[in-house]
Amino acid sequence: MPQTPHIERHFTAGETVRDIVIGMSDGLTVPFALAAGLSGAVNSSRIIITAGLAEIAAGSIAMGLGGYLAARSDAEHYVSERRREEREIIELRDAEIAEVEDVFRSYGLSEEESARTAQSLSTRPVAWVDFMMRFELGLEAPDPKRALTSALTIAGAYIAGGFIPLSPYIVLAHTHEALIFSVVMTLLALLIFGYVKGHFTGAVPLRSALQTMMIGGIAAAAAFGIARLIS
Amino acid sequence: MPQTPHIERHFTAGETVRDIVIGMSDGLTVPFALAAGLSGAVNSSRIIITAGLAEIAAGSIAMGLGGYLAARSDAEHYVSERRREEREIIELRDAEIAEVEDVFRSYGLSEEESARTAQSLSTRPVAWVDFMMRFELGLEAPDPKRALTSALTIAGAYIAGGFIPLSPYIVLAHTHEALIFSVVMTLLALLIFGYVKGHFTGAVPLRSALQTMMIGGIAAAAAFGIARLIS
Repeated sequence: MPQTPHIERHFTAGETVRDIVIGMSDGLTVPFALAAGLSGAVNSSRIIITAGLAEIAAGSIAMGLGGYLAARSDAEHYVSERRREEREIIELRDAEIAEVEDVFRSYGLSEEESARTAQSLSTRPVAWVDFMMRFELGLEAPDPKRALTSALTIAGAYIAGGFIPLSPYIVLAHTHEALIFSVVMTLLALLIFGYVKGHFTGAVPLRSALQTMMIGGIAAAAAFGIARLIS
Repeated sequence: MPQTPHIERHFTAGETVRDIVIGMSDGLTVPFALAAGLSGAVNSSRIIITAGLAEIAAGSIAMGLGGYLAARSDAEHYVSERRREEREIIELRDAEIAEVEDVFRSYGLSEEESARTAQSLSTRPVAWVDFMMRFELGLEAPDPKRALTSALTIAGAYIAGGFIPLSPYIVLAHTHEALIFSVVMTLLALLIFGYVKGHFTGAVPLRSALQTMMIGGIAAAAAFGIARLIS
């Protein structure tokens, strides 16, 4: 079985990478854009750092808790759909058997093969419900431990990402100088992050790198423009 | 077929609701927390409004474009996995037939039924790959139009959400007064939003309402605390 470990690896990496990507994309982008925007309107590092740290706290909590509740609601959704399916194979037995037959016919099995296989499945209620969940509804049993891991991964990635654009404002005295360093450092970080992200998600790394940098650049430019417009 | 339209409705609503939930959760929470945080450190409505609008611009672009690229990368992931599966049913034909048999046996079909069904499926390459995508990998063909709709829904929900906590600072002269209105209005909005969200996602509405309000409250309190600590 050379397949199974490979797929397992693929999927586990997929979820963690996805969480890191979710957290770090926004963590690198939003505090960066906010700080850049504010630097176009106020000339005080203290205010920019305050706003930046407040944003990192708010963003990481909102995204982390958001991710936690999203994962939990996926799990609850699965349970409630499963209960519905369990009721239906009893209450709407014939219709559900017909649905199984339809599924098999849609994969090209003959009338007779479909009927026989559906009949066989209908004698095993648990396997039957498993089958309907995956085939008819396209739902998979979620890992109950995912919710917390997902929350912490997203929040951690957001915080790690957020300190990159903010650090020049903390270290350097002049906001103008800090802005230049922040822009250069963050665009570079977005480029590297996008490249690595592309590598993990199976996209073309260079395209992913440029796209990711572009999102950050557009967000920062929009924030800067709006802040300038007001002040 | 009473099932199919019901499921269709269920899934379509699910994705749009999910996008609105993603955008509005953060849109209500992060600008709210940022404005509340800043009001603990600076006494200028102008700076709070500037930071708030810069955040809304940055957040909506980052999340909207992020959602767009996530949906696109899901679509690309599906295509690349499908190609791999298409190669494997030729290059690793026997192993793939054995995998199909394993799947059917795991649903309780007999040795003979599994072998016969797998054999039948193996004569139809397209159906076979469809089957492996759904059964072995648990992947479904994504809707190519989802990416743009998803992006606009997330960004729009973020902007709509963000203006609720920010509007008191725009309308009222004193930041302290605006803070109180912003807190009351936003917590109420989070409560209503959480309730409606719960109704749509099948969670217990009241619990969803309280949880959503709690996330906003915690994020705002953390941002306020950090901003006070610095100033």
